[in-house]
Amino acid sequence: MLSKSQISFIKSLHQKKYRKESGLFLVEGMKSITEFLNSQYSVQSIYCLADYIPKLPKLSQKQKVFEVSEQDLTKISTLKTPQEALAILEIPQEASFNELKADNEIVFVLDGVQDPGNLGTIIRTLDWFGFDKIICSQDTVEVYNPKVVQATMGSLARVKVAYTDLKQLLSKEKLPVYGTLLNGKNIFEVKWPSSGYVILGSEGNGISKEIKALVTEAVTIPGAGHTESLNVAISAAICCTEIKRINYIKN
Amino acid sequence: MLSKSQISFIKSLHQKKYRKESGLFLVEGMKSITEFLNSQYSVQSIYCLADYIPKLPKLSQKQKVFEVSEQDLTKISTLKTPQEALAILEIPQEASFNELKADNEIVFVLDGVQDPGNLGTIIRTLDWFGFDKIICSQDTVEVYNPKVVQATMGSLARVKVAYTDLKQLLSKEKLPVYGTLLNGKNIFEVKWPSSGYVILGSEGNGISKEIKALVTEAVTIPGAGHTESLNVAISAAICCTEIKRINYIKN
Repeated sequence: MLSKSQISFIKSLHQKKYRKESGLFLVEGMKSITEFLNSQYSVQSIYCLADYIPKLPKLSQKQKVFEVSEQDLTKISTLKTPQEALAILEIPQEASFNELKADNEIVFVLDGVQDPGNLGTIIRTLDWFGFDKIICSQDTVEVYNPKVVQATMGSLARVKVAYTDLKQLLSKEKLPVYGTLLNGKNIFEVKWPSSGYVILGSEGNGISKEIKALVTEAVTIPGAGHTESLNVAISAAICCTEIKRINYIKN
Repeated sequence: MLSKSQISFIKSLHQKKYRKESGLFLVEGMKSITEFLNSQYSVQSIYCLADYIPKLPKLSQKQKVFEVSEQDLTKISTLKTPQEALAILEIPQEASFNELKADNEIVFVLDGVQDPGNLGTIIRTLDWFGFDKIICSQDTVEVYNPKVVQATMGSLARVKVAYTDLKQLLSKEKLPVYGTLLNGKNIFEVKWPSSGYVILGSEGNGISKEIKALVTEAVTIPGAGHTESLNVAISAAICCTEIKRINYIKN
């Protein structure tokens, strides 16, 4: 059984303030935990239902495993229906400014995405298509928010995320900067370069005025014209598809 | 000021049981309400902040408008941060079996999608690309769930949704039935027909065994192989893009 103070400590990590203070975050579910165990992330401890303990991969001596009851798991979980296990992980050091830059690759940049589900789904989709980093503006939702982590379905273990001042990053950039905007070039006709940036804006307002000025290639997803906008994760997925599809076509 | 019984009646519509009983559902936000007012849907009444009443389109005499305070709007809203207005609409009669069938078009079919945000985002994406109907299995989340309606961002006003027994619908079908499955044909190389069905499965389990047997064309979205699956709304968007992109390419 977990002590009151254990429960209260883990529950504190539901909140951004305490994640920041402790440098720790939560991952739930055997699948996701296993992906993080097989990554560069440092998994501190795992709270697991008895039946699932034998299914955990081999752990180091430093990693603690606690057997928990369903009741205790419900208390510490961020989910309405808790999964089999919950783990506490260390928030890694942020990537340096140089690591962020596109270097013979296309890097996605988010300008103010607010919805945790959207950020998580974008990371999951990038991972699917083999993009391994993403740059977020400082007002983008925190990636260690449990809803973001959940929506990545373990892909956060492989996609490097960094928060930075987009203006500073992009204003001296010589690579093309693509932005999904109205009245841009038809995205289905774009010939993608080997390196550059693709910016996606926030749910409510799109790309901010300041960053829009740094876009060198406006692109638009054509549609039937009934509706004004697409969900940002959907736009991201269509950009991913368009960038990568040529690699998968033989004929 | 709204009476207690008005508030309690509107709040009852947050629940599926009472939506079913009354045949009514809720739409929130000026943008979405306006889209429904311009559609076949019947808008019964609108609860609106004073400042926004002049911005409503012209209404019929039958449609009642109530001026509400922010406090009252918070009480009746399904959202944490209520928007400017909330409307009560009639749930329309379901499409008949014949209306559901693909007739010189491609129709999307959902088999057990559970997440309201996913269903809403799929409807919004279909509307973007000009698909105007969707068929759902009977265990798919209810489309008049406020979270679904919210995520469609008004697109539900244009996309016809029907729930049916998929096995019955598809088992005598002669048109091709596409399904997103592992080890299918590369979706980027598919030549889409002018009519047929595209089935997407549930978040947890994909397409059910029974329905999988009715798929005539298995298709797969290629990826880097790091992760097992994509979010279902993302898969839907990639299918939409692949079906429609040829219409938008000149060169």
